[in-house]
Amino acid sequence: MLRWGVLSTANINNRFIPQLLKSPRSQVTAIASRSIEKAESAAKMWNIPKVYGSYDDLLTDSEINAVYIPLPNSLHAEWAVRAAEQGKHCIVEKPITTKISDVDKLQKVAKEHNVLIVEGFVHIHHPQFKAIKEKITSGCIGALQYMTGSFCFKVDQEDNIMYSREHDGGSLWNLGCYPISLMIALLGESPQTVTAMKCETKSGVDGTCHCILQFSNSRHGCISASCIASSGTNFEIIGSKGKISLNKIRAFHPDCGDNANYFDVSVSGEPEERVTVPNVDAFLSEITAFEASVLDGISPVVSLELSKLIVTTIIALHKSACQGGMPVSL
Amino acid sequence: MLRWGVLSTANINNRFIPQLLKSPRSQVTAIASRSIEKAESAAKMWNIPKVYGSYDDLLTDSEINAVYIPLPNSLHAEWAVRAAEQGKHCIVEKPITTKISDVDKLQKVAKEHNVLIVEGFVHIHHPQFKAIKEKITSGCIGALQYMTGSFCFKVDQEDNIMYSREHDGGSLWNLGCYPISLMIALLGESPQTVTAMKCETKSGVDGTCHCILQFSNSRHGCISASCIASSGTNFEIIGSKGKISLNKIRAFHPDCGDNANYFDVSVSGEPEERVTVPNVDAFLSEITAFEASVLDGISPVVSLELSKLIVTTIIALHKSACQGGMPVSL
Repeated sequence: MLRWGVLSTANINNRFIPQLLKSPRSQVTAIASRSIEKAESAAKMWNIPKVYGSYDDLLTDSEINAVYIPLPNSLHAEWAVRAAEQGKHCIVEKPITTKISDVDKLQKVAKEHNVLIVEGFVHIHHPQFKAIKEKITSGCIGALQYMTGSFCFKVDQEDNIMYSREHDGGSLWNLGCYPISLMIALLGESPQTVTAMKCETKSGVDGTCHCILQFSNSRHGCISASCIASSGTNFEIIGSKGKISLNKIRAFHPDCGDNANYFDVSVSGEPEERVTVPNVDAFLSEITAFEASVLDGISPVVSLELSKLIVTTIIALHKSACQGGMPVSL
Repeated sequence: MLRWGVLSTANINNRFIPQLLKSPRSQVTAIASRSIEKAESAAKMWNIPKVYGSYDDLLTDSEINAVYIPLPNSLHAEWAVRAAEQGKHCIVEKPITTKISDVDKLQKVAKEHNVLIVEGFVHIHHPQFKAIKEKITSGCIGALQYMTGSFCFKVDQEDNIMYSREHDGGSLWNLGCYPISLMIALLGESPQTVTAMKCETKSGVDGTCHCILQFSNSRHGCISASCIASSGTNFEIIGSKGKISLNKIRAFHPDCGDNANYFDVSVSGEPEERVTVPNVDAFLSEITAFEASVLDGISPVVSLELSKLIVTTIIALHKSACQGGMPVSL
C-alpha cells in the first residue's frame, strides 16, 4: 500500500488527488503547504488525515512512503532529492527538472535510497500511448518518417508562473515538453540534432518555439509550442504507407477525457480506422503504473533514463533557440 | 486580346487551357511540343489552330503575344528569356527558376523587351488570398505571430519528375514552394533567417523537408513539405487574438474547387466565422489578373520581385538543409 504525502496545494492536485482516492493500492495520508491554512483547506476538501505547514515536516513523517511533487518547475529536483533521502518514492510533475546535473542527482539518490522517482508525464501513461506504439510496430503505416506535434494555447494572465523566468517558465518546458516527450518515448531515443527558433515574451521566456528534431535514420520531429497563441493541439505520426492522428483537441491535456480514448489510422487506399482504447483517466493510469513499479517491481513507464533524454533534448532546443536556430547536437 | 502559345504538352495544360478558352480576353493560338504528334493531339483536343514541333518555331510566330511555360523546372528560365526576347508576355509555372541569377536575367529581359513575366502561383491569384490578407489587416486575429503550412503527399512513381535531381525535383521546389510563397506574399517580405532539415530520396532530392522561417518582428513560419509521405495539406495563420485556417484538404491544389472558396476565422471567445469568397477556378483568376496587367497596366499579383524573394528563400532553405539545419541568413 502506498501512503501518499502531497507537497503543495497546486491546482493540478484537483486532477491528481481524486484519482489517488480512487486507487485501492494508494491512500492520501498528508498534505503540506508553506501556508498551513491552505493545507488545512485542501485536507478538508479531500478528507486527508494529516496536514503540515512545511514540506520538510511532511517528508519526515515515517507513515508516508510516497510523495507527489507538483511544485514550480524550478523546485522539482530539490524536493525530489529531499524526499528520496527520506526513503519516499516520488512522482514529480513535468518537467522533472530543467538541468542535466539534477537528473544525475536524482538517479544517484534513487539508487542509494532504493526508491522510485518518476516524472509525471500523464499522456505517456495513458493506454492510448501503448496502443499507438503497438500500431507503429505492426508496420501498418510503414516505416516511420516524421512526426508533427503542437501544443499551443494562450495563457492570458501575465503573472502566471508560465511567464516566470525564475521558475523555468516558457513554452518549451511547460507545453512543448508534451509532444517532445511523446516523440522520444515512441522512438526510445533522443534526437541527434535539434534546431529551434523562438519568440520571447516581455518577461524573457520563450512565448513561442518552433523546433525540428533530427532522429536516427533521417526521421524527424516538427514541434510548435506556444503560451502566447491559441493555435491548438495535435499530434501526427507519418509513415511511408499512412499516418496516425491523435485527436486534435487536447491530446496532451490531463483532463482530455473522451478525447484520449481513441486515435485514427489512415492508410492510403484503405478506409480510415478509429482505434478505441480504454477510457481511463490518465492520472489514474500514472498512479496504477507507479504502484505496480513500487509494489510489484514492474519497470516504470517513464524511467529516469527516458526523463534524461527529454531534459537533454529540451535544453538543446533552448540552446539552439538562444543562438538563432543554430543546430545543437546531443 | 492575348493570343497564346503553349510551350509543351504537360499535364497541367489540362487545368490551364480550359480556363484560357473561357476567358474573353484570351485565345489559344498555338501549341508546341518537341513531338509534333503530341502537339497535334493536344491541338485537336482543344481546337487550337496552330501546332509547332519546336518551341523556337512557336516563339517566332508574330501572331502570338503571350506564352504559357509549363516545362520542367530546370527549363523555365531559359524559355521565359527566349520568349521575352521575342516580345512575348509569359506565365511561367512555379518555380519560375531555381537560381537567383535567372531571376535577375528575367527582370532584365522583361524590362528590355517591355513584356510581363509572371510566376504561376495559382493560389496567390485566387480571391481567397486577397480576402485572407484583408482579414489579417482588419486586426481581428490580433498581431500576426506565426504561420504553419504543410503540403505533403506521396508521389508513388519513382520515375516521376519530382524525383529528378536534374530537373530540380524534390519537396521544397515542388510542394513547399506553395506554403512558402503564401507566407512571403502575405507578409510582403522574405524571412531574415531560415533553418531546415531534410530526408533525402535515393535519387538525391529532398523527399521531406521541415523548415522554420524567421521573419521580422519575431514572426515565424513553420513548414513541412514531402513527396514521400501523405500527411496532408494545411495552412494556418496565428495571431495574438485568434487564427485563420484554410481548409485542410488541398488548400494549395489548383483543382481544389469548392475547398478554396472559404476559410475559417477563430477568435477566442467568439463563434468561429466561415468567410466565403467567389468560387473561381484559381487558373482563371491567374489568367484574368495577367490580362489586366498586360492589357490595362494593373500591377501583377505575383511580381518578379516577389518571385525573387521566394526563390531566394527556397535556395536558403536548401542550403540550410544541406548543412544539417545550420541557420542561413538572407
